[in-house]
Amino acid sequence: MAKIDLNADIGESFGPWVMGNDAALMEVISSANVACGFHAGDPDVMAQTMRAAVANDVGIGAHPGFADLQGFGRRRLNLSAEELTNLVTYQLGAAQAMARAAGGAVRHFKLHGALSNMASENAEIARACYAAALKVQPDIILVVLPQTAMEQVARDLQANWAGEIFADRAYEDDASLVARSKAGAVLHDAEEVGARIETMLRKGAIVTASGKEIPCKIDTVCLHGDGAEALAMARALRGHLTGAGFEIAPFG
Amino acid sequence: MAKIDLNADIGESFGPWVMGNDAALMEVISSANVACGFHAGDPDVMAQTMRAAVANDVGIGAHPGFADLQGFGRRRLNLSAEELTNLVTYQLGAAQAMARAAGGAVRHFKLHGALSNMASENAEIARACYAAALKVQPDIILVVLPQTAMEQVARDLQANWAGEIFADRAYEDDASLVARSKAGAVLHDAEEVGARIETMLRKGAIVTASGKEIPCKIDTVCLHGDGAEALAMARALRGHLTGAGFEIAPFG
Amino acid sequence: MAKIDLNADIGESFGPWVMGNDAALMEVISSANVACGFHAGDPDVMAQTMRAAVANDVGIGAHPGFADLQGFGRRRLNLSAEELTNLVTYQLGAAQAMARAAGGAVRHFKLHGALSNMASENAEIARACYAAALKVQPDIILVVLPQTAMEQVARDLQANWAGEIFADRAYEDDASLVARSKAGAVLHDAEEVGARIETMLRKGAIVTASGKEIPCKIDTVCLHGDGAEALAMARALRGHLTGAGFEIAPFG
Amino acid sequence: MAKIDLNADIGESFGPWVMGNDAALMEVISSANVACGFHAGDPDVMAQTMRAAVANDVGIGAHPGFADLQGFGRRRLNLSAEELTNLVTYQLGAAQAMARAAGGAVRHFKLHGALSNMASENAEIARACYAAALKVQPDIILVVLPQTAMEQVARDLQANWAGEIFADRAYEDDASLVARSKAGAVLHDAEEVGARIETMLRKGAIVTASGKEIPCKIDTVCLHGDGAEALAMARALRGHLTGAGFEIAPFG
Repeated sequence: MAKIDLNADIGESFGPWVMGNDAALMEVISSANVACGFHAGDPDVMAQTMRAAVANDVGIGAHPGFADLQGFGRRRLNLSAEELTNLVTYQLGAAQAMARAAGGAVRHFKLHGALSNMASENAEIARACYAAALKVQPDIILVVLPQTAMEQVARDLQANWAGEIFADRAYEDDASLVARSKAGAVLHDAEEVGARIETMLRKGAIVTASGKEIPCKIDTVCLHGDGAEALAMARALRGHLTGAGFEIAPFG
Repeated sequence: MAKIDLNADIGESFGPWVMGNDAALMEVISSANVACGFHAGDPDVMAQTMRAAVANDVGIGAHPGFADLQGFGRRRLNLSAEELTNLVTYQLGAAQAMARAAGGAVRHFKLHGALSNMASENAEIARACYAAALKVQPDIILVVLPQTAMEQVARDLQANWAGEIFADRAYEDDASLVARSKAGAVLHDAEEVGARIETMLRKGAIVTASGKEIPCKIDTVCLHGDGAEALAMARALRGHLTGAGFEIAPFG
Repeated sequence: MAKIDLNADIGESFGPWVMGNDAALMEVISSANVACGFHAGDPDVMAQTMRAAVANDVGIGAHPGFADLQGFGRRRLNLSAEELTNLVTYQLGAAQAMARAAGGAVRHFKLHGALSNMASENAEIARACYAAALKVQPDIILVVLPQTAMEQVARDLQANWAGEIFADRAYEDDASLVARSKAGAVLHDAEEVGARIETMLRKGAIVTASGKEIPCKIDTVCLHGDGAEALAMARALRGHLTGAGFEIAPFG
Repeated sequence: MAKIDLNADIGESFGPWVMGNDAALMEVISSANVACGFHAGDPDVMAQTMRAAVANDVGIGAHPGFADLQGFGRRRLNLSAEELTNLVTYQLGAAQAMARAAGGAVRHFKLHGALSNMASENAEIARACYAAALKVQPDIILVVLPQTAMEQVARDLQANWAGEIFADRAYEDDASLVARSKAGAVLHDAEEVGARIETMLRKGAIVTASGKEIPCKIDTVCLHGDGAEALAMARALRGHLTGAGFEIAPFG
């Protein structure tokens, strides 16, 4: 049976502020990208999140971002390669210890927000982040946007990597995401999403908004869990894929 | 030849702000307590500090504190045992990865500031912190103030531990430090400090301000490096001890 | 017609994290205690909150707290009188400018969380905070817990002040709140709350859990807006009080 | 007698970390740009700085920057006009209250670091910041880099403004600073600096590295105080200018 992983950003609460519905989402996904305290999360949120991931048998990932709580790691910061290295190393190390303390272990690594956007566009940035992660944990699985600088760097570094597509985002013909400002950038129809993702998995290709097929390695689908609509879509997608004969399981 | 370790808090700069003279102090000490980014230090400062420790063959310690940059971790915060556990786990994990990335490894663990004061007085607090550290790294060496709650907990947990005395602080008859507000609390004469520490090491006992001897395990002497006087005293103490036949080397 | 003010803590979102339902609560209250960016809120949240308060004709208050986002200002910090002065001065100044930029003005001042608890118990702390606020804005109205150190200091300083009672919290016979750990500490029945507050207003006294009456100045009732229950209770209380002939209007 | 103002960034310490030598610099300058707690400074540092400015009869300025302590406000952040408005309003309000509590008042307004660089290049950014400051304090004096977007916006807004030149930085022929990476970008000879600034003041023009003269309004000269060399140069420049018949006094 074909396997596919479902991943989501998790543990994005901070102090008294709750974000998303992690408990519900943990039952849908097979891999959790856990915020590491710089753009979201704090040691208490991380501990609780790691325990929940272990309890739900969900693969644990470190999900580092820029040190910018107010901006949620979504604002670009021009850091040197060395600063990126340190930023990533610190957060991955913290995540490893938090996972271990919960009886689990970090398996994968996914960049967050603006840091992810910048790494997908710029191989130097991707290299700084990925090389740092591999130095700390050589067998870590890098979650990579296919056909971007990320994939190129992951291949160069001969790293384990998983290709990721987005459940609810339309693609341009160069494999980048349609900007949110454009019509049709975000899909809201759960059935359409299910059919679309199934198609991409069967073809082994991103299908763009124009219908173009971009063959690539697809190992995991990114879901969202904030808001009732997102959770319903996540559940519907899981249902669709299992109904279509896919086994939902962690990549790697 | 008798061995003794000299330790100091290191890596306490933050962003553009420099604290202490780490480069000079690294040549005096054998163990460095590296700030972990919560009360001081940041990923860039940590990276540089870890590299300097490796280059100087100085033992690396994680030195976690409260998440309070403005207060430098010197203000007491009442946290639950679980919050303390998470606070310590996170910072130790970050330190481990930063040390590893620099080609080193965390060997010891020393609490900072108010967190250290609270743990020396309260066994529950010491237990939360030490058990967390041991869960992440079971062979880690806990740096402990002898005859305090710290020692009791380290023994209970059957941990590796090192007993620490202060080079320049006078002791009360219960092995606590003379409050800084009292006359004679801090010693300023480097010769007196050298003779005093040598005596304590030979007797295997803290010698209090009143002359009382409190037998205890002494493995390391805490130095300071901020300010010209402190650095001169640190160098003088090292000179005195090597002249008296002690080998300066990491504990454990 | 008798007047009473209804106040609530407002503007407690931070960056991407939403707290409470400010839009709905703004329609219930007559005074808003606006978080000032240290325990909650940020400049963007404050700007939006100030505009909403002006649009709803709600009195604006500065609501300073400890600089502790993760702990939401609920963790005690032992600061000197001078540090408290500076903490309060800074936050009040920021709130004044934000209110002015929105076409409003700060009218009142209410301490948040642990800082409020400490000031209600300790006249020195209350004095440091209140004197600081009065130096910046001499005519500001201090929101005070009656029969506590706060009231004593407000009287000593000959300040404008408003006495505050809590809608949903039971009182001990010394006018302090029943600890949340005790049964009956928090009231959940909106009708009971309405009747109870009406009684206190008519008697001009806090009625304690034991039935004791403590005569005091009552100018405002503190509501909460986080969670559906709290909002329903806030609306019910407003309905009860207007039905009983009270006019809901800002104090002072 | 011709007047000229000397300004410097002041109050850039944070918590336990000291930056610069404010006490010495306060005796040289006539206007202090006081950090407002976002990129440097904290309420305690600000209070002390405001008192020192009042004691030295030095004009007080608000010196807002990006909310980025680790990066000291030197890293660019792309914020919306509304976010810039709020950022500036908050910090200016805090500075006003801190100045007032010290018996002084904010007179001028100067942007810090990356925010200043961005505003000098981009009129929209300058406009957002300056309009925000003027809304809070209409008579505030904007410190402006002549011949940049800042000057254009200050004129458009019909604001009070002061033109600023740098004591120790070479200029390109478009009135921008020579990049620090180029030879000769920073001047180290105090005598040369004195003569150069005197020339610019007498000509009423920036004299560029190539010798070109750019006529402009020059009201204040920016000094630095971190490091022994900077302080010596600041003193030497003051000595040179007073010797040449200039009165050192706050602008406006």
